This record gives sequence, C-alpha cells and structure tokens, in this order.
Amino acid sequence: MSATQTAPKPRGRQFFANPGPTNIPDSVLLACAHQTVDFNDSNFIEVYDACVAGLKRVLKTEQTVFLYTGSGHAAWEASLVNLLSTGDTVLILESGHFSISWGKMAQDLGIEVQSVAADWRRGVDMAAVRAALAADTARTIKAVCVVHNETATGMMIPVPEVRAALDAAGHPALLLADTISSLGSLDFRMDEWGVDAAVGGSQKGLMLPTGMSFTGVSAKALEAHKSSKLPKHYFHWTNMLQRPLKSFLGTVPVSFFYGLQESLRLIEQEEGLENVFARHSRLARAVRAAVQHWSGNNGPQLFCLNPGRYSDSVTAVLMPEGLNADALRQVALKRFNLSLGGGLGPLGGKVFRIGHLGDLNEPMILGTLATVELAMQVAGVPHTPGGIAAAIASLAAA
Amino acid sequence: MSATQTAPKPRGRQFFANPGPTNIPDSVLLACAHQTVDFNDSNFIEVYDACVAGLKRVLKTEQTVFLYTGSGHAAWEASLVNLLSTGDTVLILESGHFSISWGKMAQDLGIEVQSVAADWRRGVDMAAVRAALAADTARTIKAVCVVHNETATGMMIPVPEVRAALDAAGHPALLLADTISSLGSLDFRMDEWGVDAAVGGSQKGLMLPTGMSFTGVSAKALEAHKSSKLPKHYFHWTNMLQRPLKSFLGTVPVSFFYGLQESLRLIEQEEGLENVFARHSRLARAVRAAVQHWSGNNGPQLFCLNPGRYSDSVTAVLMPEGLNADALRQVALKRFNLSLGGGLGPLGGKVFRIGHLGDLNEPMILGTLATVELAMQVAGVPHTPGGIAAAIASLAAA
Amino acid sequence: MSATQTAPKPRGRQFFANPGPTNIPDSVLLACAHQTVDFNDSNFIEVYDACVAGLKRVLKTEQTVFLYTGSGHAAWEASLVNLLSTGDTVLILESGHFSISWGKMAQDLGIEVQSVAADWRRGVDMAAVRAALAADTARTIKAVCVVHNETATGMMIPVPEVRAALDAAGHPALLLADTISSLGSLDFRMDEWGVDAAVGGSQKGLMLPTGMSFTGVSAKALEAHKSSKLPKHYFHWTNMLQRPLKSFLGTVPVSFFYGLQESLRLIEQEEGLENVFARHSRLARAVRAAVQHWSGNNGPQLFCLNPGRYSDSVTAVLMPEGLNADALRQVALKRFNLSLGGGLGPLGGKVFRIGHLGDLNEPMILGTLATVELAMQVAGVPHTPGGIAAAIASLAAA
Amino acid sequence: MSATQTAPKPRGRQFFANPGPTNIPDSVLLACAHQTVDFNDSNFIEVYDACVAGLKRVLKTEQTVFLYTGSGHAAWEASLVNLLSTGDTVLILESGHFSISWGKMAQDLGIEVQSVAADWRRGVDMAAVRAALAADTARTIKAVCVVHNETATGMMIPVPEVRAALDAAGHPALLLADTISSLGSLDFRMDEWGVDAAVGGSQKGLMLPTGMSFTGVSAKALEAHKSSKLPKHYFHWTNMLQRPLKSFLGTVPVSFFYGLQESLRLIEQEEGLENVFARHSRLARAVRAAVQHWSGNNGPQLFCLNPGRYSDSVTAVLMPEGLNADALRQVALKRFNLSLGGGLGPLGGKVFRIGHLGDLNEPMILGTLATVELAMQVAGVPHTPGGIAAAIASLAAA
Repeated sequence: MSATQTAPKPRGRQFFANPGPTNIPDSVLLACAHQTVDFNDSNFIEVYDACVAGLKRVLKTEQTVFLYTGSGHAAWEASLVNLLSTGDTVLILESGHFSISWGKMAQDLGIEVQSVAADWRRGVDMAAVRAALAADTARTIKAVCVVHNETATGMMIPVPEVRAALDAAGHPALLLADTISSLGSLDFRMDEWGVDAAVGGSQKGLMLPTGMSFTGVSAKALEAHKSSKLPKHYFHWTNMLQRPLKSFLGTVPVSFFYGLQESLRLIEQEEGLENVFARHSRLARAVRAAVQHWSGNNGPQLFCLNPGRYSDSVTAVLMPEGLNADALRQVALKRFNLSLGGGLGPLGGKVFRIGHLGDLNEPMILGTLATVELAMQVAGVPHTPGGIAAAIASLAAA
Repeated sequence: MSATQTAPKPRGRQFFANPGPTNIPDSVLLACAHQTVDFNDSNFIEVYDACVAGLKRVLKTEQTVFLYTGSGHAAWEASLVNLLSTGDTVLILESGHFSISWGKMAQDLGIEVQSVAADWRRGVDMAAVRAALAADTARTIKAVCVVHNETATGMMIPVPEVRAALDAAGHPALLLADTISSLGSLDFRMDEWGVDAAVGGSQKGLMLPTGMSFTGVSAKALEAHKSSKLPKHYFHWTNMLQRPLKSFLGTVPVSFFYGLQESLRLIEQEEGLENVFARHSRLARAVRAAVQHWSGNNGPQLFCLNPGRYSDSVTAVLMPEGLNADALRQVALKRFNLSLGGGLGPLGGKVFRIGHLGDLNEPMILGTLATVELAMQVAGVPHTPGGIAAAIASLAAA
Repeated sequence: MSATQTAPKPRGRQFFANPGPTNIPDSVLLACAHQTVDFNDSNFIEVYDACVAGLKRVLKTEQTVFLYTGSGHAAWEASLVNLLSTGDTVLILESGHFSISWGKMAQDLGIEVQSVAADWRRGVDMAAVRAALAADTARTIKAVCVVHNETATGMMIPVPEVRAALDAAGHPALLLADTISSLGSLDFRMDEWGVDAAVGGSQKGLMLPTGMSFTGVSAKALEAHKSSKLPKHYFHWTNMLQRPLKSFLGTVPVSFFYGLQESLRLIEQEEGLENVFARHSRLARAVRAAVQHWSGNNGPQLFCLNPGRYSDSVTAVLMPEGLNADALRQVALKRFNLSLGGGLGPLGGKVFRIGHLGDLNEPMILGTLATVELAMQVAGVPHTPGGIAAAIASLAAA
Repeated sequence: MSATQTAPKPRGRQFFANPGPTNIPDSVLLACAHQTVDFNDSNFIEVYDACVAGLKRVLKTEQTVFLYTGSGHAAWEASLVNLLSTGDTVLILESGHFSISWGKMAQDLGIEVQSVAADWRRGVDMAAVRAALAADTARTIKAVCVVHNETATGMMIPVPEVRAALDAAGHPALLLADTISSLGSLDFRMDEWGVDAAVGGSQKGLMLPTGMSFTGVSAKALEAHKSSKLPKHYFHWTNMLQRPLKSFLGTVPVSFFYGLQESLRLIEQEEGLENVFARHSRLARAVRAAVQHWSGNNGPQLFCLNPGRYSDSVTAVLMPEGLNADALRQVALKRFNLSLGGGLGPLGGKVFRIGHLGDLNEPMILGTLATVELAMQVAGVPHTPGGIAAAIASLAAA
C-alpha cells in the first residue's frame, strides 16, 4: 500500500439507491460532456427543439413548456411567481417534507398558505380536499398544490382525484403538480388530468445531472400569468416568450440538451415510455416484497401504510423503534459502497429511503436489497432474513 | 458519400471565439462527467469545501460566497432580491447591453433604476458618476451596479474608480459588480476594491459548462440583507445559511464541483492565477493589433475607443458602414467552423465579437484571427491584409 | 413507444460478470479518453515511466518489463518467440482451455509441445510435473508454461510449487507464467517465485480496456533471449531495447497509459494492493458459498473440485446434466442485463462462468448472484433456493 | 500561484500537428469510452459487422479484411508472415524511413530484401521499378512493398503506377501497400488498383486512438497465404477465419469499434469520403503555400521536390543548413503548445513535419502555420515573413 494512503476506500461502482438525484446512464453522461456551442446557432436549435418536443411527449401535454437553469426548487418558484400575486392564497395538500417546503417557499414569496393536513403514512384524505374547496365559497384559493410523488415518504398522490375534487366543487383554482420524482418513472398525463403547471427537474426520471428544471404550463395558466403581480425576472414567462428559444433568461445550459436528447432516445426509442413505467412498477414491487418480509421479528417496515398510494420510484423504510437509520446507512455506504437516502425533516434518523427510479434493472435492485440485508446483519438491525428471496420471487413472477 | 447525407458539415474542432460561454478544457469536461453522488456525503463535502475556498481565492475575498444552480442572470437576481426592497433605487453605470439588461431586471423586480448614461464606445465618465452620487443628498441610492467587463462592447470599467467615487462622496450605497466575463480572466479584487456583491458565473473564466453562478458577499451586504424586503426563496441567503452547505436551495448540482475542482487546479496549480491574467493580456493585445491593422482601407475597427478600458477577455469589432457582421459570421461558421459572437441589442449586425478568454493559447488565437481574415476575403469585407502578421509580431514581442 | 422501436432493450447498467474482459471504473475510462499526445514528449514519458514502475510493483519484480500493443495472446507469443528457437520443446501444464491454446500457439510457431495432462476439475498433479522434469535427463525442455489462473475452469495453479519442482529436479528450463486473469486480483510474486516470463494484459485486474499487454522478464530470460532464433520483429525485445521507451515497435498506444496511471492510483493509493487481494478473496468466497448452496437438489455446482486451487477471480459453474448453460445465460442477459461467461472448448454449454475480478464490490457481487438465482427460477434450472442468503452470510462473517 | 507550482504549463488545447498519430474528434473519443461488453454478444457483433463493412468501403474493396489488436507495425508484420516463407524475396520501393523499417522487419522475419533505391526528396523512379521487375526473370520476387504515403518525408507514391509496372512485366508478385498515413485522407482504391495486401491503422485518417490495425487482403493473397510457411499464430489468417468474428486471436478490443462506428459516421455521413479527400487536398495546398513563401531568404523549404508526389496528409519541412529543427519544435511546443513532428532516421534534426490529416479544418491549419511563423521569429530562424498570408490566399481561392 502506498505511503500516501490512509484508509482503503470502498471499491467498485457505488450503488446509488438514493432517490435524489439518481443514476445517470453512461451514454447520457458522455452526451452531456459536449463542448461549448453557440446556443443561437441552428445546429443547437435543432437539438433544442427536438428536446422540447420530447419533453412534451413525456409530460403528455401539447401546451407550453418553460425551461430554467435551476434545480427543481427553481421550477417550484417559477410556478408560483408567474401565476400569483402578493397575498393570494394557495391550498397545499400535505404529503410530507416536500409539500411543506413548497408551502414555506410560497410564504417566503408573500403568498398565503392554507394546508390540508394529513397523516404522512397514509397521505391526504380526498374528502378533506373536497371539503376545503367547498368551504372556499369566496374563491380565495388561487391554486391547489400537490406533490404527485412525495420523495420523502414514498407516497404517490393520485392527481386525477384532485382534479375531480376541483371539478366537483366547480372551483376555478389552478392545479399545480410537482412531478419531480414521478416524471419519466410513473405515468403522468398533464393534459388529460387538467394540470395547469407541472413542475419537473432533470435529475430524476430523465436521468440527467442536476441543474435544469421546467414547467409544463396550460393555456389557462398562461392566461392567469398575465395578471400575476409577484416581482420576477429570471423566471418571467413573458420575458422568456420574447427570447429566441422561448425559455431561459441569460445563457442557455447547452450541455443538458445533448444529454436530454440521449435520455429521450433511451426512454422513447430503446425502451418505450410505457415500458419504462412497467419496469418501475415491477422493480418497486420487488423492493416492497423484500421490506415486507424483513418487517417480521420487529424488523423495519414500509413507511407508507396506504397500498393504493405506494410510490413506484422511492420506498421509505421505517426503522424499528429506537434504532437510528443513519447508523445503518453509514454501514451500507462506508463498508459496502451503497448510498441510501436518509429521512428528511421530522423523519430524520427514523427512516431510510431506497430510490428505485431512472436507470435501473433487476441486478441493480437485487444488489441493493441484498446489501441492505447484509448491512442489517452487520449493524445488528433485527429483521426476518430472506427479504431478497421474496424480491426474487416477486421478479420471477412478474 | 452516404445516401443519408445532405450537405457536408464542416469538420475539425469548432473554433469557439464566442465570448459567451467559452471553451471548456477536456479535463474539466471529463471531470464534470461524474456519476451522481450524495451531496450530503462527506466525500462530496470535502470536494465542495475545497471548491468554495478556491473560488474565494479567485474572487480575492475572505468574506462570504453563495452559490446558485442558475446562470449568471440568476446571480444578478440574487444580488438584487437579497439586498433591496420594493421601491429602492439603484444606480446603474451604463456600459452596454448587459448594464441595460441588469437595469431592466431591477425594474421587473420593483426597483427604481437611475442610470449614468454613457457613450458605449468610451464607457461611463467617472465625473458623471461622482456627480450622480453627490446629487443624491437624500441617499435614496441603495446600490451602485457596475459591469466590470461589458461583454457586449468589449470594455472594462475600472471598479476601483467606482469605489473611489463612492468614498469621495461618503455615499453609503452598496457596490455591486458583475464579474461574469472578467473573473478568472482579468484581475478582480473583491475585498481590496470594496465590492459588496460580486456576481460571477461558471461558464467564462472558470471554464465550466453553463449552469452554476455565485455571488461574493461582503459583511456590509450581509447586514443590509437583513432588512431587504423583496420576496424571495430560491435565492434567499438566510435560507441558504441554514442549509448544510450554506448555499443552494434544493438539490445540489454536484457535477459542477468536480469540474470546478479541476479548473481551479488548472488555474492555480498548472498556470498560476497571475499568469492567467498575463496570458489574457498578451493574447488580447494580439487581437487588437490585428484589428487595428485591418482597420485601414475602411476596414473593420475596434469598437472600444478608450484604450484605458480595452477588455482583455473580449473584443468587439465594428464593421464598415453598410456591411452586416452576421453575414461575415455565417461565412466563418458555416464554411470554416469558427464561431464568432454577434452584436447584441442596438449593435446587432453592426459588430462581431471575438471572445478571447478562458482556455486559450497562441495557436487558438492566431487560428481565429487568420480565419477572420480569410472569411473577410471570402465575404468581400474591405480590410488591410496582414492583420495576422501584426498579431504574430505582437506575440513575438511579448 | 417510438415507431422505430422493435423490442425494448433491457435498461440500467449491464452487470458484467463475464471474466474476460472485466468492468472498467468510470475514472479509468475517462482517463483513457485522453487526446493524442506526442509519445516522445517529456510530459508523456513522465506518465509512462511512472506506469512502468507501478506495473513492476504489481508484478512484484525489479527486473524488466516489455509492453506490447496487443491482447494477452500477443504477450503469450512474445514470451515464446523471444525465448525459443524452432524445434525447442516446452512443457505445458494442462489446466483447461487456455493452457491448451497456449500450447497450440507454440506448435504454430514451430515449437515442440509436451504436456502434463490433468483432470480439469482438479488441475495438474505436481507429482506428474516432477516426474516429467526428472524424465527429461537430456534437458530438451527449454521452458515450462503454467497458467497461474485458468480462466476457463476457475482454477488457480500454485506457481511456487512449479518453481519448487524445477529446483528439485535441478532443471534449467525457463518458467513462464500466464498471469492474465490473476495479476492485480490474486497475489503474484514474479521475483520471489522465480518466474522468468510473466504474461499479463490490460483488461483484467488492471481494469483497463483490451489492447495492451506485457511481459515481466527475468535476467535469466533476457540472457536466453540472445540465443533465441525464432523469426520476430514486432515482439522483438532487442529491437525494443533500442527504442526510447524500451518497449513497443511502432506507435505507442498512449491512451492506455493515462488509464493505467489512474488504475494504479486506485489500486495502490485508494485501496492498497494487499487489500485488493483480500477483497477478491472475500467476494470469491461469497460466490462459492452461493453456488455450493444451489448445488443441492441436483443444482449447478462448482466445476473446480480442488478447494486448494479455487480461483478468487473467476468461478466456473457446472450445469446439471442435460441442461444447457447458454440457455440460462441468455435469460440472464436478454431479460435481466447480466452478462455471464460461457463455457470454452469442450466445456461449451456445460458450464457458465462468473467473473469476480477487478472493479467489484459487495452490491455488485450480490446483485450478480441474486440475478443468477432469479434467472434459474425463470429458466427452470433446478437448485436449492437461498444461495444469495449463503453469500450474505459469508460476507457478514468476513 | 499555488505553492506546489513550479513552472506554468502552457494552457489551451494543444495543437497537435504531429503526423503520428493525429487528432481524435471529441465524439470519437467519447464513443471509445464505452464500458466493457461481451464481444460474443449479438449487440456487439452488430456494431462490429457494420464497422468492417465501413472499413471495406474506405479501403474501396469487396475482398477480405483482417483486424489486429496492434499498431500499424503489427499489420505490416501480419502482411509478411501470412504471405511469405523463410528465404522468400520482397522488393521494397525506397521512399524514406518507413520503407526502410518495413524492409528491416522483413529481414528480421527471415525474408530476403531487394530494394529499389531512391532519392528521398524525389521518390522512387518508376523506370527503376520496371527494370527491377524485368530483371527478375526467375520470379524470385514474391511481393512488392510500397508505402503509399511516406510519413517521414511527406511524399506520396502512386500505387497504380506500381501496379502498371507489375502488369507490364507480367510479374506475378503480390502488391503490398502501406496505407497507414493515407487511408481516409488520400484516395486509395484497393480493388481497382490491384493491391493484394493493404496495411492500415486506427490512428491516422480514421481518427481513432492507437492500438488497432488491419489488412485488406485480396483473393490472390488469400490463396498465396495457404502456402506461406513463416511461423505465426497471433497474426495467422487461417486461425482468424475459424473465429466467430473472422479476425483477432484472443480478446477483442471492443472500445475501438464503438469509436470506429462514430468515425465512419463522421467520414461517410457527416462529410462524405470524397469531401474528406478534397478537404485534405485543400488544407495541404495551404500548408505548402506557406512553406514555399517562407523558403525565400534562405528559409525552410519543402523537403519533397517532386510536385506530383506531394503528400496531402503530411509535409516535411527542411530547415536551413546548420539550424536544428528540434530547437524550433521545442519553442513551438513548450512556449506555444504546438506539437510538430520531428525528423526520423537520417533526417533527425534536419526536418520538422506538419501533420495535416484527420480531424482538421481551416482555423486549425492556419493556427498551426501562424504559430510556426511565430516560433520561427522567436527562435531566430530565417524566413520570408508572410507565409500565413499565402496560406490564407490559397484557402480563399479554394
């Protein structure tokens, strides 16, 4: 061993089962490694236009998309500042850490926030949503915000049911959906579901590096935008529509588009979007089969208690009472090179999360689950051994 | 030729002499092609901390740096929304397209904008700046905004003279400097020059892809931030200070930091920051020598008429009356694979711009200049031939 | 799904558990992506010299190394043509497909081949080696050829015992060892073990692409080389010694050295060579634990029946009578994106091989084993389920 | 500057005007950075087959191609050992360092070498070739070896004239042509010109890294191969024909084929093979125009004195008497990051060489020439200034 070495680093490729961000396919990573080009040149514009068209197909919309140099939070902010005015009210459907963060952002921007509270292990009760809308006879609620897939708890909220609640109430509020950890992994249908602003990012199902985000925007939202009065410039849709690319204020992050071109090719041409969803569903069932098996003997269990809302892109696992999830995560990471997600906000230390979205297959998911089982043995976490066999059986039956 | 080919694309590596963004060294590009990692993991934090420390050395500051997933415009916006309140006044020193754009952004954000007008070919008169400050006896001006290097006109504005004007007037306004096309190319000394917010981006002298930007922030500015009332969240410094990395709301764009680590190594260890500045100066003089030679016979000429303010990172070249710069640019690009910058705003079609910043050397600059001369011959642009010999002579004497 | 798609390709990163070649770490792959440089320039020579020094440390030799642009077969051929003359005899220790291939190569080159036959599941009997050497009273055997790690059968042959047999017989023959699938994975000590020519390649334990190979050469072998009369040029050591780099006839494949520099850094500085061996041993035991578990119920079994000679870099698995290994391999590959090695020569269809060498860790090996178990279930291969649990237990105990 | 820095390294991209090897396009370099795959898998075989088909189109042959893991020297050796027997005679047409090296290789392999001597600045006299063939009434000459483009002297030898000489003499010898620095840069027509073995490598006009080479082989040569008796295995065509890919003994260097797939796309689809030749011709004329201009005032001059044989892929430049080419090359390299080729064999120090083949365009060639002129000024090499203007004029007229 060299004199300069202090402690051996774990070798082999890191298993990245952390839901945010996620694995980038080699071909996407190399496509991003594109030399600088002039973003006003026709060669680039051709690539750009094809990417925007593809993004619309993934969003299942024929309406407008605005793109931002920014993370998912930037697209969250863009959806708020472009549609609302100081003092407007939004109704947030509580689902976990990210719904709360979106609400906090709205407050920072001068927006009133009304929440439909929820048990995080079951998700919001649609009756409560309907009640809140019905109670809003003054129509003070300008927008309803729902996190399609709550990354912090591993729970999917059915957006069509929110749409139905709005329709049933005859409520004119805009419907804003965060699709950051669902788009390209779970089926999402912006136009069919009547979503007015769909917030997405590059670094999850689109399998790109972090740094580009976007919003699908309905015609109704574009109309509402005209009377929005929150101060804005960098995210200003009207400004964007005056730019050649109809998006981006300032320099365009060209490298993302070479990557997106490749990831759309993988999604649409190599696999097919519906096959992508089927694969996520198949792998997610295997993950849940393993966790449910482990949960015997006072082992860790699925955080989500609502089978109809299981997320197919991330699974949060609740540790046995008194055991720290982060201690287990450190064993997995430092000894076996497996990166698991931690608990966020009040769930810190109580859950760990297995991301199973994006560029993933059976060996990757089985390797992840087997290593979690190995790490539980090493760390002394009680569990019923054999979760991996349950996962294999689930996959064999798929 | 294959049946699928329509028209031959120009071959060889594109010469990118467009000032925005600029060439990315191979080693930086490959360093950016880093697999996803957990941005909360100690391995990443080690890289991150070293990058922030290096960025401070390049900014020549020991104060605070906030980073954003966003382009340079994002950092512009961050500097405004964190320091000002609705109705506050800023004084913009006119230098060209970018000073005007920054002002327009301020207006969109609800800020009053006062400008010191200027002849774009000579830059702002410091006496006029002093006069404007002296006239502001009510101290309504909360910040002075200066573009250190105006990319649109190829002009450098001496920031220390702006500082001196503030000091002479005993004016308490904050000093905001846009260093986007100067940092890492021209000497910039945040602390010594008393800059309160220094706005920078990844894609120029730091030789990275577009998508990350930052602000150096003085203690005085941090104090002013506390009473700023503009709505904000994504760019909110107070929010950032509560995050583990003291920057970034939302997912951290990790790939930029692997790239920045490498670009800092190139700048500081391979070449040395002061040597970087000397190289930019040497190459810029060669560019100007060529253009000045061409300008005989009614040829194109330097746009900047103020030798004390020549930019060492970009040169704008004014076309002979009646000739369109973009026609020349198309010959250079489509026939010879040389990308030149176009004129912005009112200079559209009237100037072309040669970017000479970042990862550049003598063969690259000579190849660029020789190809401009070739393109002028092909496009029938009048000029005194031999500009390239003047550039060679300039470099031989350096 | 796009109109151009025919059948969905399996997604996620391919698991490459095929012993030849093996996984290339991302950082090595990117290091290889180095622009062309002048191989006579001092910047390259510095990298080159450091690589050769590192290669000697991995070979555990202080003698001479010659490098070839070529695969492992090239280095095999170099070891023969540089040391022997037409009609010379070599003694090949039979171990499997590769020992036979090396012998066939010798015959093609005009060398007489004498073999020590062996049961492929147990490997050569050292007593038979001793007998063959003792019988050679005329000293017609000029070299003894041993494959340190037979990739086709997953068997390690103890080279020190061969050395001891030569010494016991007082036989002057040269000792040639093929380390292609052992070097950098299993301990190999060229000087201590008295090996005269050690044949290695880039694409196994050194974790590089295929295309560069080399031979460690003892002083005794260099002396023997002088009287070797086989025609040669491309592989001619005397020619090489006259070249500036003391290796390579013709253009030097520079990209491999940038990759090798990085792989040596991973091996020596990040992990430590002895830790590399320990990791291979630990993962190999887990593989064997799984296979031994499966072998109940007439399941597949370890091909190697000699525990003292188990290979720590590759395991050959014998299918149950009547079942075709390639059918199972196709399920693993086409459905689950796991590439397993096939049987070679007479073992075609009868065994599959799990490569477990190079850039590998627990999640990768567990993912591989779990997917083999999944594929066996899908393909209807009888086995005792739970091999993966045995592997986990083995790793937990390690 | 960091404490660890000793001397600043030149920055910017190195200009690589060294004829061996040559620039690799970014997209080819990244295509080569492909993870390991099973070379027996159908996905790879599809890529491989397409590459071999493309290679045949570039060679303009419908006959057989054999590929080697090896440099160009490997393919030289393959062409000899597969076609000849010990004691056979070959006729080498002298052109410079590489014709002599090929002859030395033949001698090392036990082949008799007869040469047609030549003035290196004019190339072989075809009358002397005809005379040598006519004199060989015993038909002892089994093969005629010609270097299509002599990289050491910058001279092209017209292969059709050699074919004509053979035909005129009714001589049955095989015609072997080295196309290493011509293929993909100069027109070469294996079948039309009656070449029996065409030797090529990856690292020149095909714009790949060094490490793969090949021979186009005629039906006549395949027939001759059957009676060849030189010992061989690694390069043995009969062995190769028994392998699944009909080439390669041992592990297949898969990364080269992902690169070749991309370089064929660039050559055939983006540009068109005939356009590639036209571009090489256009750029080569510009280089010669510059050198001819410099040659006044006792400046450096074209080494090749035979305009009909000027090479369009490399130009050797003869220094003024008494001046060392390598001193000039060091200035270009160490101060300006321009790599020029040196003189080989007896031309060492007397010539420098400008490679102008592969991935090259006008800015690259003009940058190279301007920097040579700059380096001559700095190094005090006499010349008529303005060679770069001559090159520009040549290109403007093209």
